[in-house]
Amino acid sequence: MSPQAVSPLTVNRLSVYLRCLEELQRHGVDRISSTELAERFHLSASQIRKDLAQLGELGIRGVGYQVAHLAARLHSELGLDHQHGVVIVGIGNLGTALASYAGFDSDGFRVVGLFDSDPDKHGRSRGRHTIRPIEELADVVRRDAVSMGVITVPAAAAQRILDLLVAAGVRSILNFAPRQLRTTPGTRVENVDLRIHLEELAFYLRREWGVGRSSQR
Amino acid sequence: MSPQAVSPLTVNRLSVYLRCLEELQRHGVDRISSTELAERFHLSASQIRKDLAQLGELGIRGVGYQVAHLAARLHSELGLDHQHGVVIVGIGNLGTALASYAGFDSDGFRVVGLFDSDPDKHGRSRGRHTIRPIEELADVVRRDAVSMGVITVPAAAAQRILDLLVAAGVRSILNFAPRQLRTTPGTRVENVDLRIHLEELAFYLRREWGVGRSSQR
Repeated sequence: MSPQAVSPLTVNRLSVYLRCLEELQRHGVDRISSTELAERFHLSASQIRKDLAQLGELGIRGVGYQVAHLAARLHSELGLDHQHGVVIVGIGNLGTALASYAGFDSDGFRVVGLFDSDPDKHGRSRGRHTIRPIEELADVVRRDAVSMGVITVPAAAAQRILDLLVAAGVRSILNFAPRQLRTTPGTRVENVDLRIHLEELAFYLRREWGVGRSSQR
Repeated sequence: MSPQAVSPLTVNRLSVYLRCLEELQRHGVDRISSTELAERFHLSASQIRKDLAQLGELGIRGVGYQVAHLAARLHSELGLDHQHGVVIVGIGNLGTALASYAGFDSDGFRVVGLFDSDPDKHGRSRGRHTIRPIEELADVVRRDAVSMGVITVPAAAAQRILDLLVAAGVRSILNFAPRQLRTTPGTRVENVDLRIHLEELAFYLRREWGVGRSSQR
């Protein structure tokens, strides 16, 4: 599978499959077919087969996938065998929440630094971390070989922080600020838009229960 | 398009298309083809045509889509013509961040109440809201015809809060707690897993730059 060929939505499905397989492992399931996997987790069997076929011959026709083997393969494909150092810039409420978010500090990811421009916050603790001045960002990135940066500053400051992260050598950035950021080739910025989840709920409310159709308030 | 036929990933793409169309409107673009739309926003033209075809005949072959018309249609399909009342339960750092998150309180959504079980927080302000005891949840849901609940409590408390929301009549729930919740038919729970975004970055780091391949630390 060439990098160009894989869309972010496919990658997100690989993440979902990995979670499902890990749950099956916890329940002692050894093998599963794409049809069973789809039924159990409300997925599409044909989509599963198509996505996993891109990784090579992983299933055996009529037998299915070996759960442990497939989980290990997805874990590796997703780059989770590597420990990625993560810095979070902007330690307001969202940055603080992410600093202690279990998924950001386990199995493949490790938060190694929190940064804020507010001098009143410098030296304060958030869990096992101390908030540092932005001026120390480049040193921490170099020292800990940080590969990922998370931007949780206000929109107006986001581009400046992105530029600082890129200058320090961070190539993968998760941006929670509601602003489209300019980036350079060789850098990947993913914008997280939490509103999309509410829109999904609104879609099904309208489709399934008619909420929002006609003149209903 | 029957509700059963539409996957959450398709709905998420409709949200993405709407954002793109709104940006085109701001730039004064009247018409656009699926190919141009795909190129401009790094999407798949065939996927766009397939997704939009499910909504009916929206484009004209050789002419493309009328931007304003398509945006209005998607806005309506996504249930955004309706104003959805949203309550947030669990006003720690994440709940506080979401209470002032622009996307949760505009164009189709309105935060109408913040709730927490900690008596020390009751009566405190978060933006234009005052934090209330959980005991008042059912009253607010009824009075303001709340259709959506956001769960930002610790994992151990999440199921209890879900049950309270459902008992109060909330049918659409966004769960940020890292726990799989039991629900009843007629209720939709979407689990938000922010780690999936880091995994996406890790995938491309490995694919495009080899980070995490072989023995690289």
